[in-house]
Amino acid sequence: MTEWSESLEHAAKQNKSLACFGLDPVIERIPIKEGNAEQKIAGFYGEILDACEAEDCLPGAVKPNYAFFAQYGFEGLRALKAVVDRARKTKLPVILDAKRGDIGNSSKAYAHEVFGFWQADAVTIAPYMGSDSVKPFIEFSERHGKGVYVLNRTSNAGAKDFQDLPVGGGKKLYLVVAEKIVEWGLHAKGNLGAVVGATSLDELAEINSFYAKAKNPVPLLIPGVGAQGAKAGDVVAALKKASKNLAVHRINSSSELNYAYEKQGTSDYAGASVKALKHLNKDIGLF
Amino acid sequence: MTEWSESLEHAAKQNKSLACFGLDPVIERIPIKEGNAEQKIAGFYGEILDACEAEDCLPGAVKPNYAFFAQYGFEGLRALKAVVDRARKTKLPVILDAKRGDIGNSSKAYAHEVFGFWQADAVTIAPYMGSDSVKPFIEFSERHGKGVYVLNRTSNAGAKDFQDLPVGGGKKLYLVVAEKIVEWGLHAKGNLGAVVGATSLDELAEINSFYAKAKNPVPLLIPGVGAQGAKAGDVVAALKKASKNLAVHRINSSSELNYAYEKQGTSDYAGASVKALKHLNKDIGLF
Repeated sequence: MTEWSESLEHAAKQNKSLACFGLDPVIERIPIKEGNAEQKIAGFYGEILDACEAEDCLPGAVKPNYAFFAQYGFEGLRALKAVVDRARKTKLPVILDAKRGDIGNSSKAYAHEVFGFWQADAVTIAPYMGSDSVKPFIEFSERHGKGVYVLNRTSNAGAKDFQDLPVGGGKKLYLVVAEKIVEWGLHAKGNLGAVVGATSLDELAEINSFYAKAKNPVPLLIPGVGAQGAKAGDVVAALKKASKNLAVHRINSSSELNYAYEKQGTSDYAGASVKALKHLNKDIGLF
Repeated sequence: MTEWSESLEHAAKQNKSLACFGLDPVIERIPIKEGNAEQKIAGFYGEILDACEAEDCLPGAVKPNYAFFAQYGFEGLRALKAVVDRARKTKLPVILDAKRGDIGNSSKAYAHEVFGFWQADAVTIAPYMGSDSVKPFIEFSERHGKGVYVLNRTSNAGAKDFQDLPVGGGKKLYLVVAEKIVEWGLHAKGNLGAVVGATSLDELAEINSFYAKAKNPVPLLIPGVGAQGAKAGDVVAALKKASKNLAVHRINSSSELNYAYEKQGTSDYAGASVKALKHLNKDIGLF
């Protein structure tokens, strides 16, 4: 069995990329005229991944955002299935960004949904409900080498409302969550990761340096680069302060890669996405 | 436009019930032999709701748990659609228990998924990502009279890990979340509610007394009764300490109602569920 952190390392080296290609379908921005939402979304990402493959520029992972697919109902969900299948065909690690989380039995059902039905390799989950909401995902991941990313310090403005609150002893809540992630991941052999936004580099460096001391690697999924304003090079510099093995981390960019054709003023949307991905890889500057 | 809190009051009085019938499909426990998962689940809950209607014993709301449907893939999701449609036919308020929550644009897409596609009347969401993760749901609810329940103090053991932590000033995190819920709900006219578990009655009474002072009603969705161990009568007693208008609250029971036939030793599962619901209504003791 390949552990999630090993799959991440392998894909990073194979594709020479730490980039995670976030998939956020917005029908109005997909320049395909024929077909329903399913056909447009599946066609759009299919062509983009084909172009990535043809130009030998596959990303280090893909991250379909469940919300963006599900807003189009069954058509969107069938497109999600097609996109996951397409990504798996090229052995791309698939992180389903679904922010799941519920009490024990429900989380177990969610783990079956995400890993069994959607066939994702990893999932994002929310920590608010605590240990027993996380454990069913971890148990599944230990048995099958799947990845589980717990929301830790997110990239949005509202993250300040609760995540930054000082709890007993003045430690911020996101650090208490980080301690729990290390505790939960003791037997998970690098399958348990954390979502840490790129928009606050000090906090990213602080959290990463905390994880660097843990027994197992804690893969970071880092959103906030691109449209949200952070620079990939700065993120890598922040990571380098503590991480020995950068290949388990992923820097995500979504709309800047999806709709690169808009900025580039071209109708070749697949080519534009590949170009933007190459640009991101260069900004990351590792391979 | 009918506000969510008004729909709740109306349904409570119409159906003489504060009970929320949680729908947690588990194929192995559904005693229907023919058909695929979709047919079994839709058939099971269809028959139960038919029996409730025939015996003039409809619940005050239904709460399909997204996880339990989604674990069966597209068959489960099509069953969810059928079950929501069936509940709406009898004007039952439908709370989709989906624990959604993401940054702004993604939460907006989730609001479209839940209210637009699934046609739910209300949804449960997670608070960890803060204000901008909650606002798209609230904006949708203000325009369309939909309900939004924020996880506040949940009924599971792991709730202690983060929700009970003392933050600045010694106040517990769940109370800080409660303050935010009141702030977020200032213009929401009773559409913004909270999930507060029944397993800790002191905390339930404390939180409810805090909400009773707010300008707008904060409808509570209270899981934890039945299989999880809490008694409905105790919950009502705790609520009565502060709530003037109990009809906006809902006490949820899932597996005890779904699979009542097992305990009652009968093959008439629909009749057994009605009997269990009558029993729960009696325990609540309000009508």
